[in-house]
Amino acid sequence: MSDAYIELEARFRRLSLLSESIGMLRWDMSVMMPPGGAQARTEQIAALKLLYHELMTDPAVAVGLDRAEDLESLDDWQAANLQRMRQRWLHTTAVPADLVEATTRAANTTETIWRTARPQSDFKSVLPSFTELLGLIRDGAAAKAAALGVPAYEALMDIYEPGVTTAAIDGLFDDYAAFLPEFLEEVLHVQASRPKPELPNGPFPVKKQEALCRQLSEAVGFDFASGRLDTTSHPFSGGVPEDSRITTRYDEADFTSAMMAVLHETGHAMYERGRPETWRYQPVGATPGLGMHESQSLIVEMQASRSRPFITWAATIIRAAFDGEGELWSADNLYHLSTRVARSFIRVDADEVTYPAHVILRYRLERAMIDGDLMPTDLPGAWADGMRDLLDVVPPDDRNGCLQDIHWYDGAWGYFPTYTIGAMAAAQLFATARQSDPGIVLGLATGNFEPLMRWLRKEVHSLGARYSTNALLERATGQPLNQAAFKAHLKARYLEDLT
Amino acid sequence: MSDAYIELEARFRRLSLLSESIGMLRWDMSVMMPPGGAQARTEQIAALKLLYHELMTDPAVAVGLDRAEDLESLDDWQAANLQRMRQRWLHTTAVPADLVEATTRAANTTETIWRTARPQSDFKSVLPSFTELLGLIRDGAAAKAAALGVPAYEALMDIYEPGVTTAAIDGLFDDYAAFLPEFLEEVLHVQASRPKPELPNGPFPVKKQEALCRQLSEAVGFDFASGRLDTTSHPFSGGVPEDSRITTRYDEADFTSAMMAVLHETGHAMYERGRPETWRYQPVGATPGLGMHESQSLIVEMQASRSRPFITWAATIIRAAFDGEGELWSADNLYHLSTRVARSFIRVDADEVTYPAHVILRYRLERAMIDGDLMPTDLPGAWADGMRDLLDVVPPDDRNGCLQDIHWYDGAWGYFPTYTIGAMAAAQLFATARQSDPGIVLGLATGNFEPLMRWLRKEVHSLGARYSTNALLERATGQPLNQAAFKAHLKARYLEDLT
Repeated sequence: MSDAYIELEARFRRLSLLSESIGMLRWDMSVMMPPGGAQARTEQIAALKLLYHELMTDPAVAVGLDRAEDLESLDDWQAANLQRMRQRWLHTTAVPADLVEATTRAANTTETIWRTARPQSDFKSVLPSFTELLGLIRDGAAAKAAALGVPAYEALMDIYEPGVTTAAIDGLFDDYAAFLPEFLEEVLHVQASRPKPELPNGPFPVKKQEALCRQLSEAVGFDFASGRLDTTSHPFSGGVPEDSRITTRYDEADFTSAMMAVLHETGHAMYERGRPETWRYQPVGATPGLGMHESQSLIVEMQASRSRPFITWAATIIRAAFDGEGELWSADNLYHLSTRVARSFIRVDADEVTYPAHVILRYRLERAMIDGDLMPTDLPGAWADGMRDLLDVVPPDDRNGCLQDIHWYDGAWGYFPTYTIGAMAAAQLFATARQSDPGIVLGLATGNFEPLMRWLRKEVHSLGARYSTNALLERATGQPLNQAAFKAHLKARYLEDLT
Repeated sequence: MSDAYIELEARFRRLSLLSESIGMLRWDMSVMMPPGGAQARTEQIAALKLLYHELMTDPAVAVGLDRAEDLESLDDWQAANLQRMRQRWLHTTAVPADLVEATTRAANTTETIWRTARPQSDFKSVLPSFTELLGLIRDGAAAKAAALGVPAYEALMDIYEPGVTTAAIDGLFDDYAAFLPEFLEEVLHVQASRPKPELPNGPFPVKKQEALCRQLSEAVGFDFASGRLDTTSHPFSGGVPEDSRITTRYDEADFTSAMMAVLHETGHAMYERGRPETWRYQPVGATPGLGMHESQSLIVEMQASRSRPFITWAATIIRAAFDGEGELWSADNLYHLSTRVARSFIRVDADEVTYPAHVILRYRLERAMIDGDLMPTDLPGAWADGMRDLLDVVPPDDRNGCLQDIHWYDGAWGYFPTYTIGAMAAAQLFATARQSDPGIVLGLATGNFEPLMRWLRKEVHSLGARYSTNALLERATGQPLNQAAFKAHLKARYLEDLT
């Protein structure tokens, strides 16, 4: 083993530990911190990020990467690790430090204004700051594009989904956009032929919801000796493999939202928990991309937990949790509640059929803005046009339109496609999994996720970032990422009532 | 202003932010973390500590300190800041990195063994590891002694109480040790002449205790928009000035322990909150020593909250919190409960009269061990002898003796004296404060701490580490640290029933 490679591993281990520390400070900021601590916490995180930046941009890293890449003695994992190191290094070093700092500052400002602008549907108030931020994001994208040798928007996506191309995304998304209108009509037609499912009457006390969420999360495999469940305004999954921090929010009128959010975040946590121990602190021990991460949450939430076998089992648990009685607590009603499809304005509330349309819209718009083909001032109009084309609805205001998501306003450009990559990969992996082991669906029917998790640990979790997303999918399912399994899943569930 | 000094300020700002981040990770570890996260958290903290060490031992710091110390253009605050920088730098650089690492590892091991040894009163099981740790601590002390030009034990105390000498401590402690036996007899005699106070009958539900604690903490001035109160096995105060994290533990049979712990930790938090904003991230913006820090918690807990005027007011609040009725809830009974004196084995449960004896014992023993005059194997015997001399009691086992405190087993040597320095400084400051503003005691009688806090902010909090502990006390009270006010306070409260 060469010193150059060994030294890189030591450095990336330190970088990982710094990232984990930053993640912990962020978790506390979202979950525990009193409001007065915001400024001090921002300073702490900025100091750690600067240390990260200094460790990564140290000239020794560039020299080490060059030397290690000349080696022939690396095994496959080490070689993959080296590639991931190079990718992270490229993203960190491509953008000048002052541009990074200006972007962070503009994103903080824009996000703060957005927090007031959104509830008031006041896009104009955030427009100047948003325009400035976009300019900086475009400068950063140009710098990364030059370093990576890809177009600007692709360079932004590359942070979240390394190696993915706009050509590939266009292929997947255009196909789905063409498929959706007629399919959605069919789904709504079938749905209308059934009695409308109804939510049981609440209120559902938070304490009882939380107990239910914990029980279901444990059924998936979550271990509360190595994790926590807390409350935040937006559910997320954080922490480290040995200490998963998942969160949800509770609506006392509707227990299903917290429950499904927890199942979703549990999927993320199980993926992290299953990462290869040997590569615990190395880039190759993480995920090949956020689409793959999302696929693991969607397998648990969408593929498994909204399936009829699982809901039939869970209905008993749910009834017991709330002392529910009567027809509204039947497995059939709860199943149809959990798989209800509707045209809607808000992405995070969307069902799995229409969700990709929300993503496709954002992908097209953000790409146009990065490419200079869409000016921020024209965003609300373009949003309305896009929604009309894709879902045949037009939001009544910007709160229900282009102000709904935090992403653009806090500087996360190129992130949206990962949601739908995740949905497609989830369908593809789950279809293969259930074929390769009939025990998987049988298990779900008794609340036993172990057969599913065994397959996922072997085919996905334990591989970390050893393979690219496409290579991993090809290895596990015989095909690179594609939309066939996803569409087949939607047809089976929503037209044929098969899953 | 010279570049050398400005660069030092920038670096110490980064060091402060790193320390705050480490503190936050430690808070989470004590309060929130599931057990599975211990190893990962230890790694994160070690990585941040290494970065701290690297930032501090960078040769540029040594050069910068030398240059800045030659300047004549620094104002008083800057000059004091520079002294504090030099002191921190000396402590970090004096000990070779491999010795620091070996000590940290030995302390982790010893502490782990101690956690099992203590409940079993099994000193023998921890003795080998403890002996090894002591050897490393002595090596570190020798290295610091050489760097600081003071004796080994003084060099250890210097981390916690900069500039204090063993001669000064001996003077204070020997006097108190001589004063205590006869005084304690008198106190116990007076106490025996009154009806014995009795704890009202519980149980006292944790929820109600917590609400009471929050109410009393707010009365002192704690702002829950800038802080939290949580539960841990050992109460402590952490966080940052704008985000105070205090903790306590609840005993459902005795509400007074949580209540007094919260008042104590609130005193620490108020001190942090009052630090000079201009020097927020500089050494001179912190405390001159941990004795001064302890004095602020003891002013709130011992001087103010156990005083008759305060308890008389608080009795109404306490009764309301638990729907208490009858004589046991009278102000008189609660006051005597809160000021009960007894010979006892356990330091953390000791009253303020006997507490210094526990500290004096530890000071004498740890100093003898550092100086090589006491072998670890002889510690239990020396402990028993010391307790007999100081308090005329002998613990039945080591759990109630030399195994009771974590300090020696996790490597904190030279820390104990700060408790009693704090008690003496508290009495000295409070005596001056109540003389200079009669509104202070009147305020306590209505649960209003604002007059007391106003005086403390002006004379202590806002001065940070601008003055040494002695210089600050001299400035505020006309005298350096001494035992007169403390003894006067004890006489007034325990013999004359005056406070």
